[in-house]
Amino acid sequence: MKKIAILGISGSIGISAIEVIRKHNDEFEIVLATAHKNKTKLLELSEEFQIKNIVLTGSDNGNKVDKTNLPLKTKIHYGKNSLLELLNDGNFDVVLNAVSGSAGLEYSMEIAKTGKILALANKESLVMAGHLLEKEIEKSGTQIIPVDSEHSALFQAIGASPSKYIRKLHLTASGGPFRDLPLEKFPDITLKQTLKHPTWNMGAKVTIDSATMMNKGLEIIEAHWLFKMPYDSIDAIIHKQSIVHSLVEYCDGSIIAQLSSPTMKLPILYSFTYPERLESDLIKTNIFDLQDLTFHKIEPARYPLFFLANQVGKDGGLLPTIMNSVNEAAISLFLEKKIHFVQIHKLVKNYLSSVKNISEPNLETILTANRINFEKALKDYKQYI
Amino acid sequence: MKKIAILGISGSIGISAIEVIRKHNDEFEIVLATAHKNKTKLLELSEEFQIKNIVLTGSDNGNKVDKTNLPLKTKIHYGKNSLLELLNDGNFDVVLNAVSGSAGLEYSMEIAKTGKILALANKESLVMAGHLLEKEIEKSGTQIIPVDSEHSALFQAIGASPSKYIRKLHLTASGGPFRDLPLEKFPDITLKQTLKHPTWNMGAKVTIDSATMMNKGLEIIEAHWLFKMPYDSIDAIIHKQSIVHSLVEYCDGSIIAQLSSPTMKLPILYSFTYPERLESDLIKTNIFDLQDLTFHKIEPARYPLFFLANQVGKDGGLLPTIMNSVNEAAISLFLEKKIHFVQIHKLVKNYLSSVKNISEPNLETILTANRINFEKALKDYKQYI
Repeated sequence: MKKIAILGISGSIGISAIEVIRKHNDEFEIVLATAHKNKTKLLELSEEFQIKNIVLTGSDNGNKVDKTNLPLKTKIHYGKNSLLELLNDGNFDVVLNAVSGSAGLEYSMEIAKTGKILALANKESLVMAGHLLEKEIEKSGTQIIPVDSEHSALFQAIGASPSKYIRKLHLTASGGPFRDLPLEKFPDITLKQTLKHPTWNMGAKVTIDSATMMNKGLEIIEAHWLFKMPYDSIDAIIHKQSIVHSLVEYCDGSIIAQLSSPTMKLPILYSFTYPERLESDLIKTNIFDLQDLTFHKIEPARYPLFFLANQVGKDGGLLPTIMNSVNEAAISLFLEKKIHFVQIHKLVKNYLSSVKNISEPNLETILTANRINFEKALKDYKQYI
Repeated sequence: MKKIAILGISGSIGISAIEVIRKHNDEFEIVLATAHKNKTKLLELSEEFQIKNIVLTGSDNGNKVDKTNLPLKTKIHYGKNSLLELLNDGNFDVVLNAVSGSAGLEYSMEIAKTGKILALANKESLVMAGHLLEKEIEKSGTQIIPVDSEHSALFQAIGASPSKYIRKLHLTASGGPFRDLPLEKFPDITLKQTLKHPTWNMGAKVTIDSATMMNKGLEIIEAHWLFKMPYDSIDAIIHKQSIVHSLVEYCDGSIIAQLSSPTMKLPILYSFTYPERLESDLIKTNIFDLQDLTFHKIEPARYPLFFLANQVGKDGGLLPTIMNSVNEAAISLFLEKKIHFVQIHKLVKNYLSSVKNISEPNLETILTANRINFEKALKDYKQYI
């Protein structure tokens, strides 16, 4: 039995992970699970899976769970620091970090130190602190297994091939709900339209990032750190069907791609079993359902945030952190209907042109910049749109 | 410099190999080349590449080349046995066996014994004597690198993955020139139509095999031996665009595919450089040219020889050899316009139902059966159609 820890168990990735473990409960055991605020889900799952340690990271001591509601085997903890301590103990084989947004970074750093496998669904960890996480991973000798359909695809398609043979990594992008919408209609885009993703069923944050394609920009930065490839050797292309999850172009012109029906269960399962594979009928891909697969270029006018994120990735330093936090603020504002869809880009772009970069920031600088810029963007957003 | 031997240098694979070597003449050196009868081409190439040994395998002593036409460095040899001796010397790193048809088998066996890399474009070697070739390869500790777009694709897509994780190998097939022809028009198919392949430019034999899809049947048998997979774990699908060269489905539902523009230069180059890859602009695949990729089932009524070959592969023993030789005879008859296109299948099927199988045949039995059944089918074809 592999001992699995799941951070962010009540989110969309967490729920897919639960389905994987339910199906293969003779292979995997959940030993640690966390939720930010969703007490009900966390207690329900600790009962079902008899989880030893659970953490409500978003609750302080004043919001405690009545212990009589807990299964006998389960111990409940509160707050970020309790989780950091439990991670430091290292009583697990794999940690799936499926925490949403920048909050996942500190956990990734702690997991990397333990030398256990970091199954990474939290792309912000690499976007904000790829240079720091890389060092910790190297020091402890462990590995990051990407839990993102694109990066898992690249990871599988690369296999044991040395990176010196790779000419280009091509990430695929569905294009989100507005890939065919006439550009002149962009000012009228509603929140409801934005939350309807054509192929993937995900959380609100990543669904909106998918519509602006900031998500793909963050993934380019993620790929840069994961596969140690220069930015000029990574691009993205629109593939509406979300079947080909990414492609690796080798130096001799050969292309290796990974395909499957669009489900997060596959990257999750693979991150749990790596370097092995497990016989499973969870993921069903009928080759004859693969029809009319297409590939298109990404239009700069339609997805300006993608191109902005690419540039910010190249600039590096503290800028990716600032971009990410301001984008998180912009999405909050959009969810509260305080700004329009097209103003997400405006806000991020104008905000970024007002700040100075710092190269090689340390963790404290990153976390502080993340908090301060998020708050500032949230408060002063009107001056940037 | 890698020392390359090319058997069948004047054929379509040989000519592609020449282009690869011409482009990368700082990496590869031709030390041995053979042609069956094409003296002019062989002499021309021995001049260009200053080849040390050349062999005219189809010429006896009465048909010798005037030595004054030879470059100073080149030595010419005649006949099959001279070539077998040169192969036995093993003065090369890689031998590309691109001999057409059953004639390639004895050479493959000899190359396997040397322990040098066998770059195999001659699928008949595995179809007729997979069980024998496998043993020689194991004994000498070398490897077969497939030079067939489908098998090279599988080989690349499998990479270092253990075969226990493979659920299914999916070979792709263009479907040949008659994939969309109404079945009632099959009796009217002409030789000229048959020789026009929609995506690949190849020799007559393989082009006709492609139209009947015997070629894909032979490839299934080839894959069985190359990848040590049971027949139930190998199938083929129609993919008209000839871009996805094959797909590997893993036990967890993940699919890895290899793609490129349709050119034999890539499998050839890879077989020369394996396990490395060489930076090359010989093979140009623009991802945005990949449009509307489709996958369809193979219709039994349209391609009966494909299904027949599958069954014959499963039966094993001497049957694949007999099927292959009778198919070679049928193609000769079709090229001479003595039989119709639809009679190729009829002849092979009826002939096979008249013979008895032998299990685990030795090389002599295989070679004899190959010659005898070819001649018998050629002579007595009328009684089988």
